[in-house]
Amino acid sequence: MARGEEPLLVQRPSSEHSSDSQIAEEDALLTGQPSPRNEASSRYRRWREIGLFTWALLATAAVIILATLYQHQQTEGRNDDDNDAGTPLGKRNLIFMVSDGMGPTSLSLTRSFRQYTDHLPYNDTLVLDELLIGQSRTRSSNSLVTDSAAGATAFSCAQKSYNGAISVLPGSFQPCGTVLEAAKRVGYMTGLVVTTRITDATPACFASHVRRREMEDQIALQLVGEGPLGRTVDLMLGGGRCHFLPKGRKGACRVDSTDVVKVAEEKGWNYIGNREGFDGLKLGSAVELPLLGLFADTDIPYEIDRRFDDETYPSLEEMAKTALKALSEATRDSEKGFFLVIEGSRIDHAGHSNDPAAQVHEVLAYDRAVSAVLKFLENDGTTGIMVATSDHETGGLATARQLHPTYPDYLWYPSVLANTTHSGEHIASIYHSHLSSLSSHSHSPTERSSDALRNFLTTLVSRTLGINDTSPQEIESLIEHPAIAEYTFADMTSRRSQIGWSTHGHSAVDVNIYSSDARAASALVGNHENTEIGEFLRRYLGVEDEVEKVTELLREEMDLLSESGELESWLGGVPKEGERLDGQDHLGRYAGDFKHKRHAECDVCGR
Amino acid sequence: MARGEEPLLVQRPSSEHSSDSQIAEEDALLTGQPSPRNEASSRYRRWREIGLFTWALLATAAVIILATLYQHQQTEGRNDDDNDAGTPLGKRNLIFMVSDGMGPTSLSLTRSFRQYTDHLPYNDTLVLDELLIGQSRTRSSNSLVTDSAAGATAFSCAQKSYNGAISVLPGSFQPCGTVLEAAKRVGYMTGLVVTTRITDATPACFASHVRRREMEDQIALQLVGEGPLGRTVDLMLGGGRCHFLPKGRKGACRVDSTDVVKVAEEKGWNYIGNREGFDGLKLGSAVELPLLGLFADTDIPYEIDRRFDDETYPSLEEMAKTALKALSEATRDSEKGFFLVIEGSRIDHAGHSNDPAAQVHEVLAYDRAVSAVLKFLENDGTTGIMVATSDHETGGLATARQLHPTYPDYLWYPSVLANTTHSGEHIASIYHSHLSSLSSHSHSPTERSSDALRNFLTTLVSRTLGINDTSPQEIESLIEHPAIAEYTFADMTSRRSQIGWSTHGHSAVDVNIYSSDARAASALVGNHENTEIGEFLRRYLGVEDEVEKVTELLREEMDLLSESGELESWLGGVPKEGERLDGQDHLGRYAGDFKHKRHAECDVCGR
Repeated sequence: MARGEEPLLVQRPSSEHSSDSQIAEEDALLTGQPSPRNEASSRYRRWREIGLFTWALLATAAVIILATLYQHQQTEGRNDDDNDAGTPLGKRNLIFMVSDGMGPTSLSLTRSFRQYTDHLPYNDTLVLDELLIGQSRTRSSNSLVTDSAAGATAFSCAQKSYNGAISVLPGSFQPCGTVLEAAKRVGYMTGLVVTTRITDATPACFASHVRRREMEDQIALQLVGEGPLGRTVDLMLGGGRCHFLPKGRKGACRVDSTDVVKVAEEKGWNYIGNREGFDGLKLGSAVELPLLGLFADTDIPYEIDRRFDDETYPSLEEMAKTALKALSEATRDSEKGFFLVIEGSRIDHAGHSNDPAAQVHEVLAYDRAVSAVLKFLENDGTTGIMVATSDHETGGLATARQLHPTYPDYLWYPSVLANTTHSGEHIASIYHSHLSSLSSHSHSPTERSSDALRNFLTTLVSRTLGINDTSPQEIESLIEHPAIAEYTFADMTSRRSQIGWSTHGHSAVDVNIYSSDARAASALVGNHENTEIGEFLRRYLGVEDEVEKVTELLREEMDLLSESGELESWLGGVPKEGERLDGQDHLGRYAGDFKHKRHAECDVCGR
Repeated sequence: MARGEEPLLVQRPSSEHSSDSQIAEEDALLTGQPSPRNEASSRYRRWREIGLFTWALLATAAVIILATLYQHQQTEGRNDDDNDAGTPLGKRNLIFMVSDGMGPTSLSLTRSFRQYTDHLPYNDTLVLDELLIGQSRTRSSNSLVTDSAAGATAFSCAQKSYNGAISVLPGSFQPCGTVLEAAKRVGYMTGLVVTTRITDATPACFASHVRRREMEDQIALQLVGEGPLGRTVDLMLGGGRCHFLPKGRKGACRVDSTDVVKVAEEKGWNYIGNREGFDGLKLGSAVELPLLGLFADTDIPYEIDRRFDDETYPSLEEMAKTALKALSEATRDSEKGFFLVIEGSRIDHAGHSNDPAAQVHEVLAYDRAVSAVLKFLENDGTTGIMVATSDHETGGLATARQLHPTYPDYLWYPSVLANTTHSGEHIASIYHSHLSSLSSHSHSPTERSSDALRNFLTTLVSRTLGINDTSPQEIESLIEHPAIAEYTFADMTSRRSQIGWSTHGHSAVDVNIYSSDARAASALVGNHENTEIGEFLRRYLGVEDEVEKVTELLREEMDLLSESGELESWLGGVPKEGERLDGQDHLGRYAGDFKHKRHAECDVCGR
């Protein structure tokens, strides 16, 4: 066998062999003559040396390779404890999901509801449950209880701000560059998907800057690119069409006559305004960006109601899939990936209404969207991550409610929620329509009598809430206070299911953090300030420096507009001391007004 | 130099040198005569071969070592995702901490309270916050809302049981071996430290078996070793002395005349019954095991009250330190370490009373005990871990409470809790003492007048709750319903701080899991059933098999006692269908009784 033909992994020569040849060599030395085997021995010795040398060389190479691998692995191990652990270096996608108003209790509520309705075992979980990595502390700069604006500014700007702030900072009221704006500027594609108004606080904070969240007309303009930075969003899907239509147009709520849809189209946006248009997108495979899809004047209906009106409104899951597909296709050949925000917006609204049946369906719809995102990440070729959290809890939800002075039973009844077919909002709208029709002159006095109304309500409650033991007090409350019928319907379900609420507003409990990749999101494992989530987003995308540049640009623009007197038309005026923006100024000191303003209409009062 | 004397790290011969010797060798071959340098060359060649061989050998050894290291590290990396990741092989200590009744909201409540009172920045956290690793789902076998008995059985036996079960299983009502019993039998030392009765559900589940948690007299006997397994606990510190004293003795609550302290002492227990005795333990350095320390007839006072009575009652932190030191010393020379359960028992009670001021001090006391455990683990030579969780949430606590029908402000007031010096329980006891003294005949009619009582209460509230805007309704409620004064006092604080509650019972929200070592406790990272915590405990101690053996033993004993008709004196009778043990049987189906039993005395009713 010629040398070149030697197998790479040479056998070590046997020790007997090697000692034989040593004896022959010693003979030659003693006699002064080459031993009879001298020539063959010499050649053999030469090959033996080459063999030894090859062995040594190969072993050394193996040492170098293994040492490098070992070293690399050790470094990886260390990085697990670092914040930047898993931040990939190449092209990457970031999907940030927000479950607005979803606190820890919403999870146990929804999980048990689903187990009950789907006959699942007690240890069956939501998709989200498998992804839990930590919790977020949510307070804002001016209150222990944040609103969604300050909550989303913590995500977009990674800074605490005041309740009501849309990516502007407290004190100075100056704008702060957002992770989405920076991402767009360095080449990522960007998107916003929501079930509420696209101009509402959470989406607004990523691509606009105003000093009061109520300035939704202005936010609509900035979202389509009428701000100092031009267009920073490539795709928007959700509700809130009314802020894009000029005053007077059907479904409009703008106070001015600007046609923002027209402005957007002139800027190159492709606009769709209904389910038919959405279906034309073929779940993202037929999307041309930039895309503006607005499917409701204000909010898309709660999932509990939408499921019966699927031909009018797309689901969060469908919108999420469409956005993922469209952004993935659009970035297929680019160096950067995409940054997409998906919000389960109305979990919060169900909390505000204290409506547990509406809430479980909202959380389930969000969970399905999470599942769609996970599937996308599994199948997509580009590295990517999903991080999900809430901005705050809403309602002070509790999966237990004491109804009597006697010591309460330890239970709550998912069956009551399962019997509920619609949200309090929807049922109240049926009731209000009925009242409107009664006030017309086409009805007989009998039809307009209290007894007829009682019968109507009893039947309505039975058909929609599945409640057949309605109390006279409940019916009287609905008749006397139709304006808060939504709350009353929801309360009827809450009481019977023994679900508790402490407020129609927000609460301060820490909210959960989830991720598709605990290793890459290791900076968010454990308990964190909400601003740390904002820091993670910009770090994952590698746009920390660009965010600073955007902030500089916005400040320069602010100075220019300030000189020309146009600043307030962009950002709005500086809020007055003590002005309610959403949540009062709060110094942690009780001022002594716990009892006034109390009256019977308050469902949750006294809690 | 003989071969054996060669240095281990031989220098590789230089390549020039080696090619010189090759030329000489070739000369010899061509002439048929040894070259003039033949002898020296031969010796040189021999050394070169030895050198090459040594090099190859060393490199091969290095390959083997590195490959082993690499392989090991890869296996470790894989194990991180496994359940058994960090379970150490040698001697080890396990400290399991239970924050009874502490839900996620208790953390944000206490953290903000502490920031307020100690003038700390908004991002200052509790010790616990730094240790968050996951959440636990808490439902029991017969209800979505567990009690502490079923909750602790999930920890001790790693199985779901019915509310009220002390380490017995549903259906069969047979006992299940506990992790503590198994640990003791394989050589670990064991301990229980609580602030409530040591016979209460949580500690009871680790070292006793009864079918109804109310059987505390029987539990006391089993705890000191009067059960089928003999003594399984080495150290007990807490309250609940009344169940150890014979009927008739001062402070006793037993229904029989058994002197359990005497029984314990006869079995070798060292008993201490007061602070003086505790001080004699010198925080653990003067402990002789087994040790039974009972410092209150029932519960040790809430921390908010105890802090003013430090000469009578030890704190949870002091008891924890004592137990750690004592068990560590006692296992210094043994092969096994110890298993210690430490419970912050009365966080739950503050929840039951809906008393936020009492609760924040309970959580802070627990947090200090956690800190003491961490310090112990840092300084102790034996490998060890702390795992902490709650059995359930109590009260449906919310850090937000709507008081008026108008939309609520987003805030709550920690200042109100900071002004509160005592628990509602303590203030009610002052009030009740006052009422008792009034009913004696030594008081004048003026002193017993309603006005005098109103003045007394107004002053009491001002001095203890720091409330100076007491309403006439609140005073009337205290006068009319003195039995629930504890709730009324707590509610006065809750309303003014805008802290909400939904029940005086438990709720179903997932509770937090904490650990000193997320890697070793990786099986508990994320969202888990409470039984998985029980599985972790037995696995960490390596007593899975022994637990099964203990269960067998208990079943055999059960059969024996069954034959002799003595079974019920041990386990109690089989609960009747529908019997309330703590939490009703629950099929998830609403039975339609939401409105009866309602009346004005219920603070939280209507929530």
